[in-house]
Amino acid sequence: MTPVEFFFDFASPYGYVASRFIEALSARHGRRVRWRPFMLGAAFKATGAEALVNYPLKGDYAVHDIARTCRMHRIDFSLPSGFPHAMLAPSRAFYWLHDQDEELAKRFALAIYNAYFVEGRSCSNPDVTAEVAGSLGVERADILAAMKRLNIKERLKTETDLAIQRGVFGSPFFLVDGEPFWGADRLDQLEIWLSGGGW
Amino acid sequence: MTPVEFFFDFASPYGYVASRFIEALSARHGRRVRWRPFMLGAAFKATGAEALVNYPLKGDYAVHDIARTCRMHRIDFSLPSGFPHAMLAPSRAFYWLHDQDEELAKRFALAIYNAYFVEGRSCSNPDVTAEVAGSLGVERADILAAMKRLNIKERLKTETDLAIQRGVFGSPFFLVDGEPFWGADRLDQLEIWLSGGGW
Repeated sequence: MTPVEFFFDFASPYGYVASRFIEALSARHGRRVRWRPFMLGAAFKATGAEALVNYPLKGDYAVHDIARTCRMHRIDFSLPSGFPHAMLAPSRAFYWLHDQDEELAKRFALAIYNAYFVEGRSCSNPDVTAEVAGSLGVERADILAAMKRLNIKERLKTETDLAIQRGVFGSPFFLVDGEPFWGADRLDQLEIWLSGGGW
Repeated sequence: MTPVEFFFDFASPYGYVASRFIEALSARHGRRVRWRPFMLGAAFKATGAEALVNYPLKGDYAVHDIARTCRMHRIDFSLPSGFPHAMLAPSRAFYWLHDQDEELAKRFALAIYNAYFVEGRSCSNPDVTAEVAGSLGVERADILAAMKRLNIKERLKTETDLAIQRGVFGSPFFLVDGEPFWGADRLDQLEIWLSGGGW
Protein backbone atom coordinates (compact mmCIF):
# COMPACT_ATOMS: atom_id res chain seq x y z
CA MET A 1 0.00 0.00 0.00
CA THR A 2 1.13 3.54 -0.68
CA PRO A 3 2.33 5.56 2.31
CA VAL A 4 0.36 8.33 3.97
CA GLU A 5 2.11 11.58 3.07
CA PHE A 6 2.39 13.93 6.04
CA PHE A 7 3.19 17.54 5.12
CA PHE A 8 4.08 19.88 7.96
CA ASP A 9 5.98 23.00 8.94
CA PHE A 10 8.27 22.82 11.97
CA ALA A 11 6.69 26.03 13.33
CA SER A 12 3.14 24.65 13.10
CA PRO A 13 1.56 23.79 16.48
CA TYR A 14 -1.15 21.68 14.83
CA GLY A 15 1.62 19.93 12.86
CA TYR A 16 3.25 19.18 16.22
CA VAL A 17 -0.04 17.71 17.48
CA ALA A 18 -0.40 15.55 14.36
CA SER A 19 3.22 14.33 14.62
CA ARG A 20 2.29 12.59 17.88
CA PHE A 21 -0.49 10.53 16.29
CA ILE A 22 0.10 9.98 12.58
CA GLU A 23 2.52 7.00 12.81
CA ALA A 24 0.36 4.90 15.14
CA LEU A 25 -2.84 5.85 13.31
CA SER A 26 -1.41 4.85 9.92
CA ALA A 27 0.17 1.67 11.28
CA ARG A 28 -3.25 0.54 12.55
CA HIS A 29 -4.26 0.36 8.88
CA GLY A 30 -1.06 -1.15 7.55
CA ARG A 31 0.29 2.11 6.14
CA ARG A 32 3.71 3.67 6.38
CA VAL A 33 4.09 7.45 6.68
CA ARG A 34 6.25 9.66 4.51
CA TRP A 35 7.15 12.83 6.44
CA ARG A 36 7.54 15.93 4.28
CA PRO A 37 8.43 19.18 6.01
CA PHE A 38 7.88 22.23 3.83
CA MET A 39 7.92 25.99 4.17
CA LEU A 40 4.37 27.03 5.01
CA GLY A 41 5.22 30.68 4.32
CA ALA A 42 5.63 29.83 0.62
CA ALA A 43 2.18 28.22 0.60
CA PHE A 44 0.74 31.31 2.29
CA LYS A 45 2.03 33.37 -0.64
CA ALA A 46 0.10 31.06 -2.99
CA THR A 47 -3.17 31.35 -1.05
CA GLY A 48 -2.84 34.96 0.12
CA ALA A 49 -3.06 33.80 3.73
CA GLU A 50 -0.73 34.49 6.60
CA ALA A 51 0.12 32.94 9.95
CA LEU A 52 -3.04 32.29 11.99
CA VAL A 53 -1.71 34.26 14.96
CA ASN A 54 -1.44 37.42 12.82
CA TYR A 55 -5.20 37.72 12.26
CA PRO A 56 -7.27 39.89 14.63
CA LEU A 57 -9.68 37.81 16.77
CA LYS A 58 -8.69 34.55 15.04
CA GLY A 59 -5.12 34.83 16.29
CA ASP A 60 -6.17 35.08 19.95
CA TYR A 61 -8.55 32.18 19.49
CA ALA A 62 -5.87 30.07 17.80
CA VAL A 63 -3.43 30.49 20.69
CA HIS A 64 -6.21 29.48 23.11
CA ASP A 65 -7.35 26.55 20.95
CA ILE A 66 -3.85 25.15 20.47
CA ALA A 67 -3.19 25.10 24.21
CA ARG A 68 -6.61 23.56 24.90
CA THR A 69 -6.15 20.93 22.18
CA CYS A 70 -2.78 19.93 23.65
CA ARG A 71 -4.27 19.72 27.15
CA MET A 72 -7.04 17.49 25.81
CA HIS A 73 -4.48 15.15 24.26
CA ARG A 74 -2.20 15.45 27.32
CA ILE A 75 0.64 16.76 25.18
CA ASP A 76 3.07 19.29 26.65
CA PHE A 77 2.93 22.62 24.88
CA SER A 78 4.17 26.14 25.33
CA LEU A 79 4.09 28.86 22.67
CA PRO A 80 7.75 29.73 21.93
CA SER A 81 8.83 33.32 22.45
CA GLY A 82 8.86 35.12 19.09
CA PHE A 83 6.57 32.50 17.49
CA PRO A 84 6.33 31.75 14.58
CA HIS A 85 9.91 31.31 13.29
CA ALA A 86 11.01 30.44 9.75
CA MET A 87 12.24 26.88 10.14
CA LEU A 88 14.66 26.63 7.22
CA ALA A 89 17.46 25.05 9.28
CA PRO A 90 15.63 21.97 10.64
CA SER A 91 13.71 21.50 7.37
CA ARG A 92 16.95 21.36 5.38
CA ALA A 93 18.56 19.12 7.99
CA PHE A 94 15.56 16.80 7.82
CA TYR A 95 15.98 16.07 4.10
CA TRP A 96 19.72 15.53 4.50
CA LEU A 97 19.04 12.98 7.25
CA HIS A 98 16.10 11.48 5.36
CA ASP A 99 18.28 10.55 2.39
CA GLN A 100 20.51 8.55 4.74
CA ASP A 101 18.05 7.08 7.24
CA GLU A 102 14.29 7.72 7.11
CA GLU A 103 13.63 6.53 10.67
CA LEU A 104 16.39 8.76 12.04
CA ALA A 105 14.88 11.70 10.16
CA LYS A 106 11.49 11.03 11.81
CA ARG A 107 13.09 10.85 15.27
CA PHE A 108 14.86 14.11 14.47
CA ALA A 109 11.56 15.76 13.44
CA LEU A 110 9.91 14.70 16.71
CA ALA A 111 12.96 15.96 18.64
CA ILE A 112 12.81 19.35 16.89
CA TYR A 113 9.09 19.68 17.64
CA ASN A 114 9.78 18.83 21.27
CA ALA A 115 12.71 21.26 21.50
CA TYR A 116 10.59 24.05 19.98
CA PHE A 117 7.13 23.54 21.47
CA VAL A 118 8.05 22.05 24.84
CA GLU A 119 11.49 23.42 25.67
CA GLY A 120 11.09 26.70 23.76
CA ARG A 121 14.50 26.41 22.09
CA SER A 122 15.38 28.53 19.03
CA CYS A 123 15.21 25.74 16.47
CA SER A 124 15.38 28.17 13.55
CA ASN A 125 19.03 28.62 14.55
CA PRO A 126 21.29 26.10 12.74
CA ASP A 127 23.41 25.64 15.89
CA VAL A 128 20.36 24.59 17.89
CA THR A 129 19.23 22.31 15.07
CA ALA A 130 22.68 20.70 15.12
CA GLU A 131 22.51 20.28 18.91
CA VAL A 132 19.15 18.51 18.65
CA ALA A 133 20.52 16.22 15.92
CA GLY A 134 23.62 15.70 18.05
CA SER A 135 21.46 14.27 20.83
CA LEU A 136 20.46 11.55 18.31
CA GLY A 137 24.08 10.72 17.53
CA VAL A 138 24.47 12.85 14.40
CA GLU A 139 27.87 14.45 13.95
CA ARG A 140 27.46 18.16 14.59
CA ALA A 141 30.00 19.38 12.02
CA ASP A 142 28.45 17.19 9.30
CA ILE A 143 24.91 18.49 9.73
CA LEU A 144 26.07 22.11 10.03
CA ALA A 145 27.94 21.74 6.74
CA ALA A 146 24.97 19.97 5.09
CA MET A 147 22.53 22.77 5.94
CA LYS A 148 24.78 25.23 4.06
CA ARG A 149 25.01 23.19 0.87
CA LEU A 150 23.24 24.51 -2.20
CA ASN A 151 21.77 21.13 -3.16
CA ILE A 152 20.11 20.77 0.27
CA LYS A 153 18.72 24.31 0.08
CA GLU A 154 17.36 23.55 -3.39
CA ARG A 155 15.93 20.26 -2.15
CA LEU A 156 13.74 22.01 0.43
CA LYS A 157 12.65 24.56 -2.16
CA THR A 158 11.70 21.79 -4.59
CA GLU A 159 9.81 19.81 -1.93
CA THR A 160 7.91 22.98 -1.00
CA ASP A 161 7.07 23.84 -4.62
CA LEU A 162 5.93 20.27 -5.31
CA ALA A 163 3.74 20.25 -2.20
CA ILE A 164 2.02 23.49 -3.27
CA GLN A 165 1.58 22.15 -6.83
CA ARG A 166 -0.18 19.16 -5.29
CA GLY A 167 -2.60 21.45 -3.43
CA VAL A 168 -0.93 21.55 -0.01
CA PHE A 169 -1.62 24.93 1.63
CA GLY A 170 -1.63 24.30 5.37
CA SER A 171 0.04 22.33 8.16
CA PRO A 172 -0.54 19.55 8.88
CA PHE A 173 -1.77 18.30 5.53
CA PHE A 174 -2.14 14.67 4.51
CA LEU A 175 -2.43 12.97 1.13
CA VAL A 176 -3.68 9.38 0.99
CA ASP A 177 -3.77 8.01 -2.55
CA GLY A 178 -4.51 11.55 -3.72
CA GLU A 179 -7.20 12.26 -1.12
CA PRO A 180 -6.40 15.49 0.80
CA PHE A 181 -6.95 16.10 4.52
CA TRP A 182 -6.07 19.44 6.12
CA GLY A 183 -5.59 19.91 9.84
CA ALA A 184 -4.99 17.90 12.98
CA ASP A 185 -8.79 17.94 13.32
CA ARG A 186 -9.09 15.81 10.18
CA LEU A 187 -7.18 12.86 11.71
CA ASP A 188 -10.55 11.29 12.53
CA GLN A 189 -11.72 11.45 8.91
CA LEU A 190 -8.29 10.28 7.73
CA GLU A 191 -8.61 7.21 9.96
CA ILE A 192 -12.13 6.43 8.72
CA TRP A 193 -10.84 6.83 5.16
CA LEU A 194 -7.94 4.42 5.79
CA SER A 195 -10.20 1.89 7.45
CA GLY A 196 -12.80 1.81 4.70
CA GLY A 197 -11.12 3.00 1.52
CA GLY A 198 -13.27 6.10 1.32
CA TRP A 199 -16.97 6.58 1.80
CA MET B 1 -27.22 26.09 33.55
CA THR B 2 -26.47 28.72 30.94
CA PRO B 3 -27.30 27.88 27.34
CA VAL B 4 -24.76 26.97 24.67
CA GLU B 5 -24.61 29.93 22.29
CA PHE B 6 -24.52 28.83 18.66
CA PHE B 7 -23.39 31.53 16.23
CA PHE B 8 -23.79 30.80 12.53
CA ASP B 9 -24.28 32.31 9.10
CA PHE B 10 -27.06 30.90 6.91
CA ALA B 11 -24.60 30.60 4.00
CA SER B 12 -22.08 28.58 6.05
CA PRO B 13 -21.89 24.89 5.09
CA TYR B 14 -20.10 24.00 8.32
CA GLY B 15 -22.79 25.95 10.18
CA TYR B 16 -25.32 23.73 8.41
CA VAL B 17 -23.44 20.63 9.58
CA ALA B 18 -23.35 21.90 13.17
CA SER B 19 -27.07 22.75 13.09
CA ARG B 20 -27.82 19.03 12.75
CA PHE B 21 -25.94 18.10 15.93
CA ILE B 22 -25.84 20.96 18.40
CA GLU B 23 -29.29 20.50 19.98
CA ALA B 24 -28.91 16.78 20.73
CA LEU B 25 -25.29 17.22 21.83
CA SER B 26 -26.18 20.01 24.27
CA ALA B 27 -29.27 18.21 25.54
CA ARG B 28 -27.12 15.19 26.49
CA HIS B 29 -25.46 17.49 29.02
CA GLY B 30 -28.58 19.25 30.20
CA ARG B 31 -27.99 22.43 28.21
CA ARG B 32 -30.30 24.47 26.07
CA VAL B 33 -29.01 26.14 22.89
CA ARG B 34 -29.40 29.76 21.95
CA TRP B 35 -29.23 30.12 18.15
CA ARG B 36 -27.69 33.37 16.94
CA PRO B 37 -27.40 33.93 13.20
CA PHE B 38 -25.06 36.75 12.28
CA MET B 39 -23.50 38.22 9.14
CA LEU B 40 -20.18 36.46 8.69
CA GLY B 41 -19.14 39.04 6.08
CA ALA B 42 -19.00 41.69 8.82
CA ALA B 43 -16.72 39.43 10.90
CA PHE B 44 -14.51 38.88 7.84
CA LYS B 45 -14.01 42.66 7.68
CA ALA B 46 -12.82 42.57 11.30
CA THR B 47 -10.32 39.76 10.71
CA GLY B 48 -9.27 40.65 7.16
CA ALA B 49 -10.46 37.23 5.98
CA GLU B 50 -12.85 36.38 3.18
CA ALA B 51 -15.04 33.46 2.20
CA LEU B 52 -13.08 30.19 2.25
CA VAL B 53 -14.04 29.37 -1.35
CA ASN B 54 -12.39 32.59 -2.59
CA TYR B 55 -8.86 31.50 -1.61
CA PRO B 56 -6.69 29.73 -4.20
CA LEU B 57 -6.02 26.07 -3.26
CA LYS B 58 -7.90 26.36 0.02
CA GLY B 59 -11.16 27.10 -1.78
CA ASP B 60 -11.02 23.92 -3.86
CA TYR B 61 -10.12 21.90 -0.79
CA ALA B 62 -12.99 23.44 1.20
CA VAL B 63 -15.59 22.47 -1.41
CA HIS B 64 -14.21 18.92 -1.40
CA ASP B 65 -14.00 18.75 2.41
CA ILE B 66 -17.54 20.03 2.95
CA ALA B 67 -19.02 17.40 0.63
CA ARG B 68 -16.89 14.66 2.22
CA THR B 69 -17.82 15.77 5.75
CA CYS B 70 -21.53 15.67 4.86
CA ARG B 71 -21.16 12.20 3.30
CA MET B 72 -19.43 11.00 6.46
CA HIS B 73 -22.32 12.27 8.58
CA ARG B 74 -24.90 11.04 6.00
CA ILE B 75 -26.25 14.56 5.60
CA ASP B 76 -27.56 15.64 2.19
CA PHE B 77 -25.56 18.48 0.70
CA SER B 78 -25.15 20.27 -2.56
CA LEU B 79 -23.28 23.53 -3.09
CA PRO B 80 -25.88 26.12 -4.18
CA SER B 81 -25.34 27.82 -7.52
CA GLY B 82 -23.78 31.25 -6.93
CA PHE B 83 -22.59 30.29 -3.41
CA PRO B 84 -22.03 32.09 -1.06
CA HIS B 85 -25.02 34.48 -0.81
CA ALA B 86 -25.51 37.31 1.70
CA MET B 87 -28.24 35.91 3.92
CA LEU B 88 -29.76 39.13 5.26
CA ALA B 89 -33.37 38.07 4.63
CA PRO B 90 -33.49 34.81 6.62
CA SER B 91 -31.26 36.28 9.37
CA ARG B 92 -33.65 39.18 9.87
CA ALA B 93 -36.65 36.86 9.68
CA PHE B 94 -35.05 34.59 12.30
CA TYR B 95 -34.87 37.33 14.96
CA TRP B 96 -38.44 38.43 14.25
CA LEU B 97 -39.62 34.84 14.76
CA HIS B 98 -37.30 34.33 17.72
CA ASP B 99 -38.91 37.15 19.68
CA GLN B 100 -42.28 35.42 19.32
CA ASP B 101 -41.39 31.73 19.56
CA GLU B 102 -37.82 30.46 20.03
CA GLU B 103 -38.61 26.88 19.00
CA LEU B 104 -40.33 28.04 15.83
CA ALA B 105 -37.27 30.16 15.01
CA LYS B 106 -35.03 27.09 15.35
CA ARG B 107 -37.30 25.04 13.08
CA PHE B 108 -37.21 27.93 10.61
CA ALA B 109 -33.38 28.01 10.73
CA LEU B 110 -33.20 24.27 9.99
CA ALA B 111 -35.73 24.70 7.17
CA ILE B 112 -33.68 27.53 5.61
CA TYR B 113 -30.49 25.46 5.79
CA ASN B 114 -32.31 22.58 4.14
CA ALA B 115 -33.82 24.78 1.43
CA TYR B 116 -30.39 26.30 0.68
CA PHE B 117 -27.97 23.38 1.03
CA VAL B 118 -30.24 20.50 -0.04
CA GLU B 119 -32.80 22.02 -2.40
CA GLY B 120 -30.53 24.79 -3.72
CA ARG B 121 -33.20 27.48 -3.30
CA SER B 122 -32.30 31.19 -3.33
CA CYS B 123 -32.82 31.83 0.35
CA SER B 124 -31.18 35.26 0.18
CA ASN B 125 -34.38 36.31 -1.62
CA PRO B 126 -37.04 37.57 0.85
CA ASP B 127 -39.80 35.86 -1.14
CA VAL B 128 -38.10 32.47 -0.79
CA THR B 129 -37.48 33.14 2.90
CA ALA B 130 -41.19 33.87 3.29
CA GLU B 131 -42.11 30.68 1.41
CA VAL B 132 -39.94 28.60 3.74
CA ALA B 133 -41.51 30.29 6.78
CA GLY B 134 -44.92 29.76 5.19
CA SER B 135 -44.33 25.99 5.17
CA LEU B 136 -44.08 26.27 8.98
CA GLY B 137 -47.40 28.11 9.21
CA VAL B 138 -46.06 31.66 9.35
CA GLU B 139 -48.18 34.24 7.56
CA ARG B 140 -46.32 35.25 4.42
CA ALA B 141 -47.37 38.92 4.41
CA ASP B 142 -46.36 39.34 8.07
CA ILE B 143 -42.83 38.03 7.64
CA LEU B 144 -42.29 39.95 4.40
CA ALA B 145 -43.29 43.16 6.18
CA ALA B 146 -41.15 42.33 9.22
CA MET B 147 -37.99 41.87 7.13
CA LYS B 148 -38.38 45.41 5.83
CA ARG B 149 -38.73 47.05 9.23
CA LEU B 150 -35.88 49.23 10.44
CA ASN B 151 -35.90 47.79 13.96
CA ILE B 152 -35.44 44.26 12.59
CA LYS B 153 -32.61 45.39 10.32
CA GLU B 154 -30.97 47.12 13.28
CA ARG B 155 -31.48 44.04 15.43
CA LEU B 156 -29.42 41.87 13.06
CA LYS B 157 -26.74 44.54 12.88
CA THR B 158 -26.57 44.74 16.68
CA GLU B 159 -26.45 40.95 17.08
CA THR B 160 -23.62 40.82 14.53
CA ASP B 161 -21.66 43.65 16.20
CA LEU B 162 -22.10 42.04 19.63
CA ALA B 163 -20.94 38.66 18.34
CA ILE B 164 -17.77 40.20 16.87
CA GLN B 165 -17.15 42.14 20.10
CA ARG B 166 -17.31 38.81 21.93
CA GLY B 167 -14.64 37.33 19.63
CA VAL B 168 -16.85 35.49 17.14
CA PHE B 169 -15.13 35.48 13.73
CA GLY B 170 -16.29 32.28 11.99
CA SER B 171 -19.27 29.97 11.49
CA PRO B 172 -20.16 27.88 13.34
CA PHE B 173 -18.86 29.37 16.57
CA PHE B 174 -19.91 28.34 20.06
CA LEU B 175 -19.63 30.04 23.43
CA VAL B 176 -20.09 27.96 26.57
CA ASP B 177 -19.81 30.03 29.74
CA GLY B 178 -17.32 32.21 27.87
CA GLU B 179 -15.29 29.35 26.43
CA PRO B 180 -15.00 29.69 22.61
CA PHE B 181 -15.13 26.85 20.09
CA TRP B 182 -14.79 27.52 16.36
CA GLY B 183 -15.85 25.07 13.68
CA ALA B 184 -18.00 22.00 13.24
CA ASP B 185 -14.78 20.08 13.91
CA ARG B 186 -14.74 21.39 17.48
CA LEU B 187 -18.06 19.73 18.40
CA ASP B 188 -16.03 16.88 19.91
CA GLN B 189 -14.10 19.24 22.20
CA LEU B 190 -17.30 21.14 23.00
CA GLU B 191 -18.92 17.89 24.11
CA ILE B 192 -15.92 16.92 26.27
CA TRP B 193 -16.03 20.41 27.78
CA LEU B 194 -19.75 20.12 28.58
CA SER B 195 -19.30 16.67 30.09
CA GLY B 196 -16.46 17.58 32.37
CA GLY B 197 -16.62 21.30 32.95
CA GLY B 198 -13.33 21.95 31.17
CA TRP B 199 -10.00 20.17 31.42
